[in-house]
Amino acid sequence: MSHSRAEIITIGDEILYGQILDSNSQWISQELDQLGIRGVRQTTVGDIEGDILHAFKEAEQHADLVLITGGLGPTNDDLTKPLLARYFGADIELNKEALEEVRALFKKFGKELTETNKQQAELPVNCEKITNKLGSAPGMWFNENDTVFISMPGVPHEMKGMMTDVLLPRIRSEFHTLSIYHKVVKTSGIGESWLSDKIKPWESQLPVHIKLAYLPSVLEVKLRLTASGLDRNQLKADVDDEIEKLIPYINKYIFGYNKDTIESVVGQKLQDMALTISTAESCTGGFLAHKITSVAGSSAYFIGSIISYNNRIKEEILNVSKDTLSTFGAVSEETVKEMAVNVRNQFKTDMGVATSGIAGPGGGTEEKPVGTVWIAVSDSNGIETRKLSLAKNRLVNIEASTKAALSLVLQRLMKIN
Amino acid sequence: MSHSRAEIITIGDEILYGQILDSNSQWISQELDQLGIRGVRQTTVGDIEGDILHAFKEAEQHADLVLITGGLGPTNDDLTKPLLARYFGADIELNKEALEEVRALFKKFGKELTETNKQQAELPVNCEKITNKLGSAPGMWFNENDTVFISMPGVPHEMKGMMTDVLLPRIRSEFHTLSIYHKVVKTSGIGESWLSDKIKPWESQLPVHIKLAYLPSVLEVKLRLTASGLDRNQLKADVDDEIEKLIPYINKYIFGYNKDTIESVVGQKLQDMALTISTAESCTGGFLAHKITSVAGSSAYFIGSIISYNNRIKEEILNVSKDTLSTFGAVSEETVKEMAVNVRNQFKTDMGVATSGIAGPGGGTEEKPVGTVWIAVSDSNGIETRKLSLAKNRLVNIEASTKAALSLVLQRLMKIN
Repeated sequence: MSHSRAEIITIGDEILYGQILDSNSQWISQELDQLGIRGVRQTTVGDIEGDILHAFKEAEQHADLVLITGGLGPTNDDLTKPLLARYFGADIELNKEALEEVRALFKKFGKELTETNKQQAELPVNCEKITNKLGSAPGMWFNENDTVFISMPGVPHEMKGMMTDVLLPRIRSEFHTLSIYHKVVKTSGIGESWLSDKIKPWESQLPVHIKLAYLPSVLEVKLRLTASGLDRNQLKADVDDEIEKLIPYINKYIFGYNKDTIESVVGQKLQDMALTISTAESCTGGFLAHKITSVAGSSAYFIGSIISYNNRIKEEILNVSKDTLSTFGAVSEETVKEMAVNVRNQFKTDMGVATSGIAGPGGGTEEKPVGTVWIAVSDSNGIETRKLSLAKNRLVNIEASTKAALSLVLQRLMKIN
Repeated sequence: MSHSRAEIITIGDEILYGQILDSNSQWISQELDQLGIRGVRQTTVGDIEGDILHAFKEAEQHADLVLITGGLGPTNDDLTKPLLARYFGADIELNKEALEEVRALFKKFGKELTETNKQQAELPVNCEKITNKLGSAPGMWFNENDTVFISMPGVPHEMKGMMTDVLLPRIRSEFHTLSIYHKVVKTSGIGESWLSDKIKPWESQLPVHIKLAYLPSVLEVKLRLTASGLDRNQLKADVDDEIEKLIPYINKYIFGYNKDTIESVVGQKLQDMALTISTAESCTGGFLAHKITSVAGSSAYFIGSIISYNNRIKEEILNVSKDTLSTFGAVSEETVKEMAVNVRNQFKTDMGVATSGIAGPGGGTEEKPVGTVWIAVSDSNGIETRKLSLAKNRLVNIEASTKAALSLVLQRLMKIN
C-alpha cells in the first residue's frame, strides 16, 4: 500500500502577477509532509475558467488528494465554486447549515447579512460543507472517482483554521500515510557554516534513513532531522538518539526544539521560575514587547514596557540621567544600562531589558553607523550588555536586535537557575 | 498581435515538502508583469524525471516562454539539465566558454575546480549558455518549436543576477509585450461583501480592458485595477479616470494606494501636520508601537509608549484610576479612555492612542469573550472609542486591534485637517 499523493492548486491573478507571495502552499505542504502524504505538484493559475478547469483535470490524473485555495470570495472574480460544480456536473443549492453558520458569525460581529453573503452559503450539492469559523466562505470536500478535492478560502488564517480544526485530522484518518518523523533543533548565536563545521563528525555518521537540513533565518539556524520508514515509534526513537549524540557538540547554542521560539522558551522559563520581566525600548520600538506578548499566557510574567523613542521620554519617564544622555548619547552602553535598571525598578520586575540603537535608514554617523545597537539585561545577578553591529535594513535590524535581547535574557535565566 | 504568455516551473523536493518558500516565482512574475508579459501558470514539481518531463510538455502547450528555476546543482538529485537535453533530443557537450567562466569565478574566490564543477560546464548542444556571474551553474536558453525555454539556478541571488543582467533585456526585445498597468486602491473599515455591494454600479460600468480584483486581508480590502492594451500612458489615464469615479462611492474607506500601508499614511499625515503621537497599549502588547515605528523616519512624530500589560502599570505608571479599573475592569471603554488621555498628557503629544482587550486564547468571560477589544484615540478634538468583537486567534486579534487603532487615528487626522 503506497502512501497517498497530493497536489496543491492556488487560484488567483494576484499570485501570477507577483503581487502577493503564495505562502499558503508552503504551509499546506509542511502539514501534509508531517502526515507522511507526499506532495507531487503545486500549481498556480489565474482567475480564468479554462485554466482552472484544466488544472482540476491535470491534478485528478496525478493525485489522490487535491487541495485548492483561493477564489471563494463573494465577488465576480471568484470562480472556484461555480467551476467545481461545473467540473463535477453538480447543481448549486443553498446549504441551510452553512447559512446559519454565516449568520451566527455575522451576528457575533454585529453585522447584517447581505444578499452577497447569503450566496456564499450556496454550495454544489455533491460536496460536504467544511465549517469556516473565521470567515463567510465555507470550505468544500468532494469525493469523486477516488480523488478527494478540497476547496478552501485563500485568506491564510481562515485556511489554516479550517485545516487544523477539521481537514488535517480527517485526511490523516482517510489517506494512506508513510511514516515520516521530523524533529527540529533550534540554535542561536552561531552562523550556518560554523555550525556545519562543528557538527561534521556527527553529520557524517547519520544513518541513511535520517536526513539533515540546515534552515537559517535572522540570528537563528534550525537543524531539521527527518526520518522516514514504516514504524513511527522506531523513527522517533532513532531521531531522539541522534539528537542525544548531537547535543554535546553544540549544547550552548541550542535554545529549543520544533515549534519553540526564543520568546516561548524565555516565557516558559520565567513562568517556571516565577519571575517577571519588563522592557525599555528605543530602537526596537515595541517589537520586543510584542514578541514577548505574542506568547499565550505571557501576562503571567510580562508586566509592561516603556517605549522611549524620544529622548525626552528616556529622561522624563524612564529617568535616564540628563548627564548620561548628553555625555554618551542615547545609543550607548551607559544609557541602555540605565534604561534596563530603571524600568526594572519602576515596574518592580525581576528582570529589565533595554534596547537602544540606530535602526536606519537615517540617523547613522561615522562613529555610530546604522545598525549600531546596544542591549542590556538587568536582574538579581547584576547587569549585562551587548553591542551589535547589524546591517542596513530597518526591519531586519529591529528583528535582530529583538532576538539578540531575548537570547541574552535566556542566557541570564540559565545562570539564575 | 497578442502578447506573450509565460509559465514558471520550479523544480525541487524542498518546495514540495514545504521546507523552503518559493519566493523566486513571485519575483519572476513581478518582473514579467512589468514587461507586460502575461503569467499564465506556475508549477512546482519535485526531483522526479517523469514529473519534470510532464511539466515541460504541459508548459510548451500553454506558453510562449517557459522559465525554469532549480535542479542545476552538481549533485545526483539535480535533473534539470539532462532532462532538458532528453526533452529536446540533444547531446550534452563541454562548453569551453562556460568552463572558462567557472574557472575565473573560482579563481576569484581562491578555490580550485573539482571534477564535479567541471561537469557543470557541460551543456545541451541546442542551447545558448547564459553567463552566471555569481555561481558555478550556467543558465540555458532554448528556442524550439516557437517556444523559448530558459533554465536558471534556484539560488535566488544567482537567478536574479542572470535575469537582470541578461534575460529580462532579451525577453523585452524578443517577445510581444502588451502594456499592463496596475493600480491598487486600499480600503479599511469595510468588509469585502459590503464593499462589493457599494461599488456594484461602478464595477458594472468598467470598460472591458480594465479588470477589478478584490484582495482581502486582516481588516483591509485592496481593490486592484488592471488595464491592458497597447499604450501605457493611455492605460494609466483610463485607470486614473475610473478611480476618480470610484472615490465618491467609498471615499471614507480609502486610506491609500499601491504600496501605502495604514501606518505609512498615518505617519505621512502626522509629519505633514507636524503632530506627535504616543500609545498606551494593553492587549496589543507593543505591536501598535512596532507598526508605527516600522516606518522609516517615524522618530519625527512617534514619541513613545507605555505598555501597561499588568493592571498595576495601568494604575501606577499610566495613572488610570483605581476606581475605574475596579468598577469597569481593564477591558472597558472607561479604562481605555483614561489610558489614551493620560499617555497623551504624560508624553505631551498631540494624539494619544490606547488599546485594551482580551487577545486570548485564555482570559475570556461570558460578558467579555476572547476577542473583545476597546480602542480609544484622544486628540485636540476630543476622544473617540471603538469596541471590536474579534475572533479566537491571538495573533490575528493583536494585528486586527492594531489596524483598527491606526484606522481610527487616520479618521481623526482627516477631521483635524
